[in-house]
Amino acid sequence: MSLLIDSINSPADLRRLKLVDLPVLAKEIRNEILSTVSKTGGHLSSSLGAVELAIAIHYSFNTPRDCVLWDVGHQAYAHKILTGRAKYFSTLRQLGGLSGFPNKDEAGEYDMFTCGHSSTSISTGLGLVMSSDLNKERRKVIAVIGDAALAGGMAFEALNHAGHSKKNMIVVLNDNELSITKSVGALSRYLNRIITNPAYNKIRNDVERVLKRIPRFGFRAYRAARKLEEGLKNLLIPGMLFEEMGFRYFGPIDGHNIAQMITVFRNLVNLNEPILIHVVTKKGKGYKFSEKYPSEFHSTGPFDMETGIPVKKAAKETYTEAFGDKMLELGKKNEKIVGVTAAMIDGTGLDKFAKAYPERFYDVGISEEHAVGLSAGLARGGNRPVVAIYSTFLQRAYDQIIHDVCLQDLPVVFCLDRAGLVGEDGPTHHGVFDIAYTRHIPNLIVMAPKDTDELKEMLSYAAEQNKPVAMRYPRGSLPILTNDASLIYAKHGLETEPVKTGKAEIIKEGRDIAIMAIGSMVSTAVEVSAILLKKRVDAAVINARFIRPIDGEMIEKICASCKRIVTIEEGVLEGGFGSAVLEFIERENIKGVRVKRFGLPDRFIEHGRREELFKKYNLTPDAICDVIIREVMS
Amino acid sequence: MSLLIDSINSPADLRRLKLVDLPVLAKEIRNEILSTVSKTGGHLSSSLGAVELAIAIHYSFNTPRDCVLWDVGHQAYAHKILTGRAKYFSTLRQLGGLSGFPNKDEAGEYDMFTCGHSSTSISTGLGLVMSSDLNKERRKVIAVIGDAALAGGMAFEALNHAGHSKKNMIVVLNDNELSITKSVGALSRYLNRIITNPAYNKIRNDVERVLKRIPRFGFRAYRAARKLEEGLKNLLIPGMLFEEMGFRYFGPIDGHNIAQMITVFRNLVNLNEPILIHVVTKKGKGYKFSEKYPSEFHSTGPFDMETGIPVKKAAKETYTEAFGDKMLELGKKNEKIVGVTAAMIDGTGLDKFAKAYPERFYDVGISEEHAVGLSAGLARGGNRPVVAIYSTFLQRAYDQIIHDVCLQDLPVVFCLDRAGLVGEDGPTHHGVFDIAYTRHIPNLIVMAPKDTDELKEMLSYAAEQNKPVAMRYPRGSLPILTNDASLIYAKHGLETEPVKTGKAEIIKEGRDIAIMAIGSMVSTAVEVSAILLKKRVDAAVINARFIRPIDGEMIEKICASCKRIVTIEEGVLEGGFGSAVLEFIERENIKGVRVKRFGLPDRFIEHGRREELFKKYNLTPDAICDVIIREVMS
Repeated sequence: MSLLIDSINSPADLRRLKLVDLPVLAKEIRNEILSTVSKTGGHLSSSLGAVELAIAIHYSFNTPRDCVLWDVGHQAYAHKILTGRAKYFSTLRQLGGLSGFPNKDEAGEYDMFTCGHSSTSISTGLGLVMSSDLNKERRKVIAVIGDAALAGGMAFEALNHAGHSKKNMIVVLNDNELSITKSVGALSRYLNRIITNPAYNKIRNDVERVLKRIPRFGFRAYRAARKLEEGLKNLLIPGMLFEEMGFRYFGPIDGHNIAQMITVFRNLVNLNEPILIHVVTKKGKGYKFSEKYPSEFHSTGPFDMETGIPVKKAAKETYTEAFGDKMLELGKKNEKIVGVTAAMIDGTGLDKFAKAYPERFYDVGISEEHAVGLSAGLARGGNRPVVAIYSTFLQRAYDQIIHDVCLQDLPVVFCLDRAGLVGEDGPTHHGVFDIAYTRHIPNLIVMAPKDTDELKEMLSYAAEQNKPVAMRYPRGSLPILTNDASLIYAKHGLETEPVKTGKAEIIKEGRDIAIMAIGSMVSTAVEVSAILLKKRVDAAVINARFIRPIDGEMIEKICASCKRIVTIEEGVLEGGFGSAVLEFIERENIKGVRVKRFGLPDRFIEHGRREELFKKYNLTPDAICDVIIREVMS
Repeated sequence: MSLLIDSINSPADLRRLKLVDLPVLAKEIRNEILSTVSKTGGHLSSSLGAVELAIAIHYSFNTPRDCVLWDVGHQAYAHKILTGRAKYFSTLRQLGGLSGFPNKDEAGEYDMFTCGHSSTSISTGLGLVMSSDLNKERRKVIAVIGDAALAGGMAFEALNHAGHSKKNMIVVLNDNELSITKSVGALSRYLNRIITNPAYNKIRNDVERVLKRIPRFGFRAYRAARKLEEGLKNLLIPGMLFEEMGFRYFGPIDGHNIAQMITVFRNLVNLNEPILIHVVTKKGKGYKFSEKYPSEFHSTGPFDMETGIPVKKAAKETYTEAFGDKMLELGKKNEKIVGVTAAMIDGTGLDKFAKAYPERFYDVGISEEHAVGLSAGLARGGNRPVVAIYSTFLQRAYDQIIHDVCLQDLPVVFCLDRAGLVGEDGPTHHGVFDIAYTRHIPNLIVMAPKDTDELKEMLSYAAEQNKPVAMRYPRGSLPILTNDASLIYAKHGLETEPVKTGKAEIIKEGRDIAIMAIGSMVSTAVEVSAILLKKRVDAAVINARFIRPIDGEMIEKICASCKRIVTIEEGVLEGGFGSAVLEFIERENIKGVRVKRFGLPDRFIEHGRREELFKKYNLTPDAICDVIIREVMS
């Protein structure tokens, strides 16, 4: 049987279908998404929720002349399938395959921006509107944004500007009452009140009909009628908050009713003002397990389609788990400790702490700036906030880290999960800049643990400092070590030094060369030393622990003994950890030392499995070893 | 005659005064502010506008047990005078004297946070509320925030959380219908509508009285009454938007009527929920010139009190003026160029462009994140946005620079004014991190001009690139050069090289040592070379121009010829320009070169005149020279 989905190579093909065919197509798209994501993993729930919406938008608007921007980007699978990428869809999230997010290099006509961070679409969309206006292009711009993303400060800034500008910006609020877990904040409660009051719509229609009949004789009467209309609107229109912001509000409408959405969209095409269409969808729609457990299927690994059960590899304790367990323990010991996150309770492992100490836990929603500001206040009030935010998302709060925490020298603990390469989520999600963006901030201590045990110890240490502390750690677990490396690691394990400010630890002594690695790259350094040993190079391995303050004494020591230093970090080299080592050597005027830094190159890194990316960017033990032999030992 | 102001050593003293004395005190405080600021310069208009408000707050609340946070901090002069700092007030903004902003090191009891960036107070204040709650302290927290600052995304994120939390957070909206210039955005228009409809308040009171009389018999009747009440509230309460956000709204009230404000504040003391009090003030109140020209007196230098005329030093063209003039010229030549700023039209010099090309100019208000997002959209639509934002405030948009502009490789031009030490505004305003926070972003070109002519050339260059470009330049003008330095500078001036990507220029050849300086430090380097010449050291002077990509060829050349390289930058050394030089030398494995970096130390720098700070931190030509002779030439 031929499928409709196979006939869609562009939105133009879609627009040739009849209305009655669209629900059938929706079903096919949903199947395609499900069968692919069950194999590749991905953002299932949001994308399943937006299938009908994607169809309705591409059917109603003249894409790609008109632009649709999918905020955060994880709702965009159906959009991808509808815009010529159905045949590649099975390559989703794989190295060289389709990106899991809108990607300008994949289909720039349809994906105006590569995106993955939240709350940007109204802002970038308004820029497109302004540009289209200046260049007399009259293209429509539709920003589709979730209720959780709408609470991000950047979205509000853009709404405020768009509403004032009176330009024809179309915002589709995709309201599923969920961010990744349950939405938080007053805005969310407000939206919920709208949805649960269907009576509003009926009354509103009645009133509008009455108002239309008021005869408009003379200016004063007209003004009075307008005033009445305004007042009644305020009383009866559910989207009053948006109307006050300068948007014309429509909704709420059923986001799984394609025909209804198309009617609404088509009616709006000729309006020339800021418009907000409130669409209600169900996250995970159309697959019983994701409907029931939308959070679990928000970002999922491969799973069995029949049972919904994840296809899990037997894994060691992840860094995230270690963090979560330790937070629970510290929370018990020290009642001053509070947990803060920005819409990532499960992702950061704070769920256990949140359950045990709900009164000491704050999920502020997608509001990283506020999360850090709030933490500053909590610390100033005498508490010990631990803020867990992914490395890439904490970029949003760079100014707050400086201005609200470090300038005050407040004891806030920043836990940067997903630091380094995150793998399949790609360039928008890799946490590769954090060493560079934290290393120059006065008062801040910056560190990275070599494994989950050290993470726990470091978290204890951090909670005891009277200063701001940042700790970065990667996604997943410590990789499985080779036998040789395990031996080195185990031998060292017997005599581990406690964590002390600015102190590195020696994992393996060595005479020929010293490898100083930070965080996730310590195990790689151990592997490198094991390979080097076979080549008769005796390498010391140093676990740097601290990026700032860096262990100067240790650097002096290894400079004196080895004259050859290699640094390894999972982050960009510019301004990174190795750069800190160079700076120390310059400052102390240490002469005659050859330093070679390993890290990530000066470019945005694509998606793919972590191991594949390490290979591609020459950060595997073998690749590092080759360079050391060739360039450093020669 | 004894003054009331002399009897106030703390808010407790204030609270001993009678109500009738307060307007007299207000007058005295206003005189003190005026006479000091006319000599020292400072943020006059905002602080004059908040005199009565500061008195009313400290009179009504139990400070310092209760906390008051002054958003942005430039409204806080009266607060300073009332909290034991009247006798030092004449030292305002001078090295070692009182800071122009709240400062925790100056009076930590009253200034909970050192602050100077906008839109943070609700966020940090809510943290204090949460903390007070956890620790059962029952302290009141009052965040005073201007209407312009309220439009910043961080403030909205915090409102959203506070309204949802139902905690007793008190927000005083100090509404003067002005940010630094006229407020923009839908929120501002909304507030204006409230203020200009005094009838609202009367009707509202009537309705509330009627509602109170409705007998409440039985659940359904009660529900109906509640529903009616809710509906009428929506219709009649001007602060509906805030009510929808979970705040109880009071206002608008006259922010210069101390007695009225005290009545309102005292009535609220026992409420235990999020409260927003809308206070209307006049910026620049009480001084005829600042009332008439509030923007001109927002941040002013010294002026003559009688005439309001600035006491100006004859100054050379400032970097800001050069930027403004060049933008006007480029705007004429290239109609794709658009200007974007965040509430700093005059401060950035974009006023001329804005007047000439209003349709191609966007002031988004205090919304740096959106300013950058909007620019990304404009660039994607085919325009050439030039975004002018102060270095320190662009920290707010660090993530947007990465995610929305550089990841897309879009031709947005970032102009970072006030890069380096800004002087009297102090630690919150120094732009010392931008080299470090831009240098590691892929695709971005980063540069700094040595003088205003080069700024103009670089701006032309930037507007022609098909990539994102950032340019940093300091406050003020090129310092007046000594005769010796002028000669070197002038000689070079005859043969200036055009600006080319990643290419430095040689200002002076030299055999013994090479000084590679960036931006504002090039003239310092020339001075250094002139002094060194007298000590028989022949130093080459290189104007680096590009921080990224750095001129590797030039570094190789000077490494080969000199073996001694000095770098000078006006920014933090960690991850800075000098660090880029070290990285290049490591990458190319260049041996036997002594590098010495000069820049700002790893600490937050206090306020004081630029020249004083350079002296204190050893960045004067003499100080640099001394170190070169002692450490590098030895």
